[in-house]
Amino acid sequence: MKKLIKSVLAAASVTALTAGVASAQHETDRAQIEGVLGVYEKALNASDTAAAISVYEADGVFMPQNSPSQVGTDALRGAYDRVFKAITLNVDFEIVEIVQMAPTWAFVRTNSAGTVTVNATGDKGPEANQELFIFHKGDDGAWKIARYAFSTTNPPRQ
Amino acid sequence: MKKLIKSVLAAASVTALTAGVASAQHETDRAQIEGVLGVYEKALNASDTAAAISVYEADGVFMPQNSPSQVGTDALRGAYDRVFKAITLNVDFEIVEIVQMAPTWAFVRTNSAGTVTVNATGDKGPEANQELFIFHKGDDGAWKIARYAFSTTNPPRQ
Repeated sequence: MKKLIKSVLAAASVTALTAGVASAQHETDRAQIEGVLGVYEKALNASDTAAAISVYEADGVFMPQNSPSQVGTDALRGAYDRVFKAITLNVDFEIVEIVQMAPTWAFVRTNSAGTVTVNATGDKGPEANQELFIFHKGDDGAWKIARYAFSTTNPPRQ
Repeated sequence: MKKLIKSVLAAASVTALTAGVASAQHETDRAQIEGVLGVYEKALNASDTAAAISVYEADGVFMPQNSPSQVGTDALRGAYDRVFKAITLNVDFEIVEIVQMAPTWAFVRTNSAGTVTVNATGDKGPEANQELFIFHKGDDGAWKIARYAFSTTNPPRQ
């Protein structure tokens, strides 16, 4: 995962806290979110469904291109199993921004790039996507993915 | 635009307010966000770039499929101009959920469906997408789109 190039703390999350406490908490939150993204990246590249769904909340939503939105752990398990059966990914995520909107909510925008191999044929090609994650911090203090949408940034196939 | 079928007020936005005030404010916020989505839907179906970009914040980000992320008003204007030059949309948005995460932040998940006409050829086909919007309420009290990603839910073209 590439280095963070932008991070913004939304004013909303600071107002109730002293600046010092907010800043330290913000750094902790950001580090935890980056850690979760790292786990997710590794899960994708290892075709590891269990690891991929472990970073979602139980009612998390995955919005994969060319598929209806997948809601909740069981649907996510099926969706990632289908993806990993069809393709093998080797991608690197670059964090464009992490914006903390509230003490328990943040969004992250990333770009990912690398290669995709079609398992059935062995054909390999370039993969490039843009991602929008909404993270939520649960009662246990863990940041997880609440909603996640992405799409390719490559031109349409002719 | 179809009727709202789910709306959740995140606990974070209530804690500092009395329940009654929060509830009334929440209804107002939700109504304003629905209004913005209505303007956006109308803009898409009218191929109206000025109206489409009017519902974004000045540093808003549009993440269209098959294109790099477009950041800020000038990039958005170019992106919508290109889309509307290429295709004519006739789509209906259905709101799946509006979740207010903080007094000035909300996310919205929608599905849209209808038809797309390729302007160069007149070819018409089915269009179906899933959308994830992050809304922000500015200092002027207006809710606008801060980030917006979508992708097709149709299967890949063969």
